[in-house]
Amino acid sequence: MNDFPDRRRVLTERLAEYEVDGFLTVDPAHVAWLTGFSGSNAGAIIASDGQSAISTDGRYTVQAGKQAPDVPLVSARNTGAALLERAPQMGVTRLGIESDLLTLAAYEDLKSKTPAAVELVATEGFVGKQRVVKSEGELTALREVALIAVRAFEDMLAAEVVVPGRTERQVAAELEYRMRMHGADRPSFDTIVASGPNSAKPHHGAEDRVIEAGDLVTIDFGAYSGGYNSDMTRTLFAGGAQAAPAKAREIYNVVLESQLAGIDAAVAGASLVDVDGVCRKVISDAGYGEYFVHSTGHGIGIEVHELPFAAQTGKGHLAEGMTLTIEPGIYIPGFGGVRIEDTLVITSEAPEIITPLPKPSA
Amino acid sequence: MNDFPDRRRVLTERLAEYEVDGFLTVDPAHVAWLTGFSGSNAGAIIASDGQSAISTDGRYTVQAGKQAPDVPLVSARNTGAALLERAPQMGVTRLGIESDLLTLAAYEDLKSKTPAAVELVATEGFVGKQRVVKSEGELTALREVALIAVRAFEDMLAAEVVVPGRTERQVAAELEYRMRMHGADRPSFDTIVASGPNSAKPHHGAEDRVIEAGDLVTIDFGAYSGGYNSDMTRTLFAGGAQAAPAKAREIYNVVLESQLAGIDAAVAGASLVDVDGVCRKVISDAGYGEYFVHSTGHGIGIEVHELPFAAQTGKGHLAEGMTLTIEPGIYIPGFGGVRIEDTLVITSEAPEIITPLPKPSA
Repeated sequence: MNDFPDRRRVLTERLAEYEVDGFLTVDPAHVAWLTGFSGSNAGAIIASDGQSAISTDGRYTVQAGKQAPDVPLVSARNTGAALLERAPQMGVTRLGIESDLLTLAAYEDLKSKTPAAVELVATEGFVGKQRVVKSEGELTALREVALIAVRAFEDMLAAEVVVPGRTERQVAAELEYRMRMHGADRPSFDTIVASGPNSAKPHHGAEDRVIEAGDLVTIDFGAYSGGYNSDMTRTLFAGGAQAAPAKAREIYNVVLESQLAGIDAAVAGASLVDVDGVCRKVISDAGYGEYFVHSTGHGIGIEVHELPFAAQTGKGHLAEGMTLTIEPGIYIPGFGGVRIEDTLVITSEAPEIITPLPKPSA
Repeated sequence: MNDFPDRRRVLTERLAEYEVDGFLTVDPAHVAWLTGFSGSNAGAIIASDGQSAISTDGRYTVQAGKQAPDVPLVSARNTGAALLERAPQMGVTRLGIESDLLTLAAYEDLKSKTPAAVELVATEGFVGKQRVVKSEGELTALREVALIAVRAFEDMLAAEVVVPGRTERQVAAELEYRMRMHGADRPSFDTIVASGPNSAKPHHGAEDRVIEAGDLVTIDFGAYSGGYNSDMTRTLFAGGAQAAPAKAREIYNVVLESQLAGIDAAVAGASLVDVDGVCRKVISDAGYGEYFVHSTGHGIGIEVHELPFAAQTGKGHLAEGMTLTIEPGIYIPGFGGVRIEDTLVITSEAPEIITPLPKPSA
């Protein structure tokens, strides 16, 4: 995809929002998103007249020339300082910096090197807000990483890995191996395999507990490749649903109903508070409201968690081209828990589910 | 290991170095290192009279009580602000904060909430410097994660995975799978499998290139478990050394000689510049100096790269209980490259090699 010139153009048009005439980032993910250059030491500057430049050190100059051939390159170890030096000749007088990503020490260093004609202006979420609506190229990338995870999970089920006698860690290893073989560079985050009582902990990892018949097994996983992430969750019944207590099947079905209602509600124009509320109401009505201890969902892209956030404290509304996970859960301490999660692409009608894995009722 | 009270005591004794009478961290790795509490939202404050407190939100309060039962807990979402509020009653007037880890936005937020009697003081490397000499408990943890990686590599060799016809990605998947099965929570970093011409790139990942007979294959990998990392590199000859060009065998033997010389030089008291120089001299004397394009090594612990650094710009000397990688390399663009890396624990005599994998000469 070559959305990079467009992204820089849109960012240029947004400079006035922050009352700046230039923008500097030394966040590698943001430099990659704006220019295509993906080295780990990277900076980019963009001025209101459309001029831009990137900077990196000798390890990456060849790569930068290939990945961002249309952007002038300044070779330097301290990329921020090197680009700052260019600001006056690019006509920049008020330069936006990312106060939510820059460390205080890095800021103090930049400040000490700021030319007299330039003022540094703290901004927050400048690029993050622009990233919330995805381009077609980004949606293609997101569908691809989601499918890597889906196929890996299907392969794992076919190999009968999630069965009594295996450990959580073994299940995670088998799933991550298959994601890797299907093209992932790495998991998007530490795979969660939470079995039996562990499934009551939303933030459980994958430990050495042996899975037993009748256990709920919550598996939350994602694949990272080419800069993009995926995220989905399924809860399985070890040894089959009939081996589980009736209460386990009950909370499973409540969470499933909640999740399907959330998906129905996730259309362009819906408020993020309402989407959360729809999921929460199903669970509360069933008497389990106190056990749904987190928010309903989040956007996903170059970060696993990014705007928008469907939560009781959510802000704003959904729009076409946003991504959103819908992931309600019920977690009963000492007993177990259930979470079911898909990733959606928001449209004006029913959302596109890019994590198409079965989720049969119990 | 329960080194935590000792670590806090030593930190308390070091407060005067920075002309502060208290220290605040909201870095989860540092909170874990100082208290044992490993949640992802975490803060800790330590005062010169030995008082301390930690803070986290409702998701982690039970976990914090279990992991750090000896430290008072303040439940809050904004952990830094909550602990800052306690500073005056702990007698703190000058509170050190980590300017190299705190974002500018987080600092501005803290500053706006700082009680009148307290001044925030920027410090850098406060905990990092203290972490450079490892305790016995830490060395045990580091030996364990190193052995996970060693065993996984041995298993992978036994399964004849690194052979012509496999892709770099497949080799990485097989190695990571075995690290996971031996107990790793995840790789310490993205596994490098750099074959043929790709081996000339020190920062190559693992792509879809098919390995050919005669290729150099550089594999740089590590296992993360229980908060600690490992790091090692071997270069193999796909199809056996006899299939490779004479020059490949030659640069392999030069790197091996350099690496062995570096290990011999890495004793307590040696200067870090000298350790780098010993490795560099062997490679330069063989006529390949321009192709050794990085530093010789780094410490490892809760971070993959931490103090000390053996480099041409290295500072200070080795001491007992430090860790250090020795990882010289030769990278010839268009041809290929070799890197061999072990992790050492520094002693007063020959260092302990905690990554004991064969590295036969070619």
